[in-house]
Amino acid sequence: MLKHSLALCQARVDAILAREIDQLDDGAPRLKQAMRHGALLGGKRIRPFLVYAVGELLGVDKQQLDPCAAAIECIHAYSLIHDDLPAMDNDCLRRGQPTVHIAFDEATAILAGDALQTLAFDIISTADAELDAQQRLQMVKALAQASGYAGMCGGQAIDLAATGQSIDLAQLTRLHNLKTGALIRCAAELALIAAKAPESEKAALRSYADAIGLAFQVQDDILDITATTEELGKPQGSDLNANKSTFPKLLGLAGAQQTADNLVADALSALAKLPYNSQLLAEFARFIIERRV
Amino acid sequence: MLKHSLALCQARVDAILAREIDQLDDGAPRLKQAMRHGALLGGKRIRPFLVYAVGELLGVDKQQLDPCAAAIECIHAYSLIHDDLPAMDNDCLRRGQPTVHIAFDEATAILAGDALQTLAFDIISTADAELDAQQRLQMVKALAQASGYAGMCGGQAIDLAATGQSIDLAQLTRLHNLKTGALIRCAAELALIAAKAPESEKAALRSYADAIGLAFQVQDDILDITATTEELGKPQGSDLNANKSTFPKLLGLAGAQQTADNLVADALSALAKLPYNSQLLAEFARFIIERRV
Repeated sequence: MLKHSLALCQARVDAILAREIDQLDDGAPRLKQAMRHGALLGGKRIRPFLVYAVGELLGVDKQQLDPCAAAIECIHAYSLIHDDLPAMDNDCLRRGQPTVHIAFDEATAILAGDALQTLAFDIISTADAELDAQQRLQMVKALAQASGYAGMCGGQAIDLAATGQSIDLAQLTRLHNLKTGALIRCAAELALIAAKAPESEKAALRSYADAIGLAFQVQDDILDITATTEELGKPQGSDLNANKSTFPKLLGLAGAQQTADNLVADALSALAKLPYNSQLLAEFARFIIERRV
Repeated sequence: MLKHSLALCQARVDAILAREIDQLDDGAPRLKQAMRHGALLGGKRIRPFLVYAVGELLGVDKQQLDPCAAAIECIHAYSLIHDDLPAMDNDCLRRGQPTVHIAFDEATAILAGDALQTLAFDIISTADAELDAQQRLQMVKALAQASGYAGMCGGQAIDLAATGQSIDLAQLTRLHNLKTGALIRCAAELALIAAKAPESEKAALRSYADAIGLAFQVQDDILDITATTEELGKPQGSDLNANKSTFPKLLGLAGAQQTADNLVADALSALAKLPYNSQLLAEFARFIIERRV
């Protein structure tokens, strides 16, 4: 059931992103191609999946969720393009393909990231969907706060500052709650806004999203050690080589795996508070820490 | 009168930007400092001035215009930080000060630009001001469209592609209408949204903004030849050295000056259609082509 849902979500969000980018004029063709490359490089589409799964659980139509799914993936894609730049993580490979600055050039990669960030806010404010102005505005706000200084972007800055430094578990947790957690939580938040969900349900679903957001990062750290370069689509051991603090480094491999298990248990107990059949979200939480890529 | 208004606007928008940035938490202090450096490096604050001048002409309170003035300057500041990067224009000096990647480092400069873009949308959607959700949403939309692929960002990509190429006057005009014109026009547009202005007034003020937006760039090209490095706060002749197409290169210096004069005449005749005392905006149009910096 989950595998099928993930594949459907991937196809749906890819089609929307392709349409959004293809409908741009051809004034700057190289930039347009670079945006397409960065946004449609594959990927699990974890954030759009969460938008759809949380939204549908609460009875929202897929069509109303489309702008949120596309916008959050634009933000994620922009962050990957910029994080891969030589001045940042200097990665040449992503999902088995050349990164944007390799396939194009650095200047184009910077601009493609910039334009994808803008496109996210453009989509939320203009895309055809049954959302009122109040909802769209709340979505802009949620997306801006999750992706800016107080969220993803600040997290990346803290990550850069922490490279080569030894940081403790609390600092590492905070870093990842910002760098990846904020946007994963935002995916659930956007769906909650689309659903006009009551506060009690919001609290449970935010706890769920927080737990799987951190579990996702713990598993990423584990995979950097245990998966092959082929499985990862990028060089194995790149965190170790970059001298980054990771959960396995601080807790040992078994300790990191235990942490991931505990986080999934937290996610499942948050779901248990909801008066819905949340089987799909439960499967998704387990998938987060069982995945090999 | 204009000089006084420009100085007041500068102080006002600087205070708002300083407040917005200072109130961010201290989790990523280097990023925060870099955002401050990039946003508060001085500058004429042309875009915020236009927001206030157009808005006040139509009877809008300064306070209602503050979020628009701050947000558009965040977008402008982000674009300067990224344009100055080594992979783009590789500029070390801006307004007589080291550019962000020189004062900090490249990774921090990329992130500071990213976070300032996000901050613009954050400010529009959250800042305290008497604006309804519909207005704020229209502002997000206007800002996104002016700054993304179909505006500023696309213009910068076309500019990069055109460097070292010979382009004609129509192409150069289109490039600058996107690269600088779109955001200058947007400043007027944001004020029109705040004012809920009638269509007839919108048309006249958009024509005014289009004309001074292009005049601004023509004058920039002229100054690159005629002003000193000290006046410019950056190396004189940098367009020539970078082998960029400019208005003086295509039209001669006298031809470029005539074009600037014609554009200001267009701007003034657009103002003449309005039933208001538009003396300040008229002075501003003349200032655009008489300025030495």
